[in-house]
Amino acid sequence: MLLVTAFAGAQSLAPIKLNEPDKNRGTSVMKALNERQSTREFSTEKLSLQDLSDLLWAANGINRPDGRRTAATARNNQDIDVYAIMEEGAYFYDAKNNELKPVAEGDYRALIADRQVSVKDAPVSLLVVSDISRFAGLDIETQKQWGALDAGIVSQNIMIFAAGCGFVTVPRVYMNKDELKKVLKLSETQIPMINNPVGYKR
Amino acid sequence: MLLVTAFAGAQSLAPIKLNEPDKNRGTSVMKALNERQSTREFSTEKLSLQDLSDLLWAANGINRPDGRRTAATARNNQDIDVYAIMEEGAYFYDAKNNELKPVAEGDYRALIADRQVSVKDAPVSLLVVSDISRFAGLDIETQKQWGALDAGIVSQNIMIFAAGCGFVTVPRVYMNKDELKKVLKLSETQIPMINNPVGYKR
Repeated sequence: MLLVTAFAGAQSLAPIKLNEPDKNRGTSVMKALNERQSTREFSTEKLSLQDLSDLLWAANGINRPDGRRTAATARNNQDIDVYAIMEEGAYFYDAKNNELKPVAEGDYRALIADRQVSVKDAPVSLLVVSDISRFAGLDIETQKQWGALDAGIVSQNIMIFAAGCGFVTVPRVYMNKDELKKVLKLSETQIPMINNPVGYKR
Repeated sequence: MLLVTAFAGAQSLAPIKLNEPDKNRGTSVMKALNERQSTREFSTEKLSLQDLSDLLWAANGINRPDGRRTAATARNNQDIDVYAIMEEGAYFYDAKNNELKPVAEGDYRALIADRQVSVKDAPVSLLVVSDISRFAGLDIETQKQWGALDAGIVSQNIMIFAAGCGFVTVPRVYMNKDELKKVLKLSETQIPMINNPVGYKR
């Protein structure tokens, strides 16, 4: 028994199979925009699997048979990845398979929070990463600018989802980027652009 | 009579007083995200004053008594301005006074379209400009990155409004930036980041 437990504890996290998103959910678009605001105080209450599924699909899910997304990218270069940082671990959002793939076991929400400790309470933080190598050939300043534009688009999807579906969030440019890059095993060209802790209002 | 007409023709454009936005308009948030797609073919049909008012408020309107907006900005530094480029002229969106202030008379939509001539048909193009001097003190790369993040946020407000309220749009990084800067009398630090032609589907 002890051996089995020890083995289970060392196993890597299992993928989280997400539900089909509820594509009718939420208030009207204009009401959501009216409710849109930044909140930095979160309840520790977790999101249900359906909430998490809807949130991730809203952020950057596939909304057409050809694989296109809820968020456009510059030149349709698909530079954006979304990671979910939760108490049990850090996950990559695999939109195609509608699941969260584990990247690192453990609670890395403090790396997202950095000095804004209150946001560590949020049950999930979505980190938006741009792989600027998708814009290779352009000058580096333009690469980063386009990557940031694309990340801002995803971040606003998260904000409007939250405002329209009863959650709170805040878009944040601060975080411990160097440590996050290590934990998430990002390449040199993958830049953590913006993060959104999401949860219920405290 | 002739003199009066000549005088009237030379007069600058009048400001366009916008309507109160309809804060209940549109489909549910998730339905709008499901409809979100980029369209580059537009009918030349114009938007009504109410449509234009709702569109601009959705993009970057004031949604709280303290003057805060439908779009967040990095560090709340309020670096974003929105310009409306229409057949009769180019206008600055004055969110506080809920009006469009004329900046230049004449049709500058071709400067927005650049080589993508089909988008010139759109009755209005919203140009999102970041004044990166609001991030003075940071390195220039970070200034541009944050300005781009903030611009992406506004652009996605426009896209979700369009998807949820029966319009079409496309976020575009291409445009004739140099000429637009001249026409709009932008300062060195005001960067045209992204534009969204908006209209009805052709």
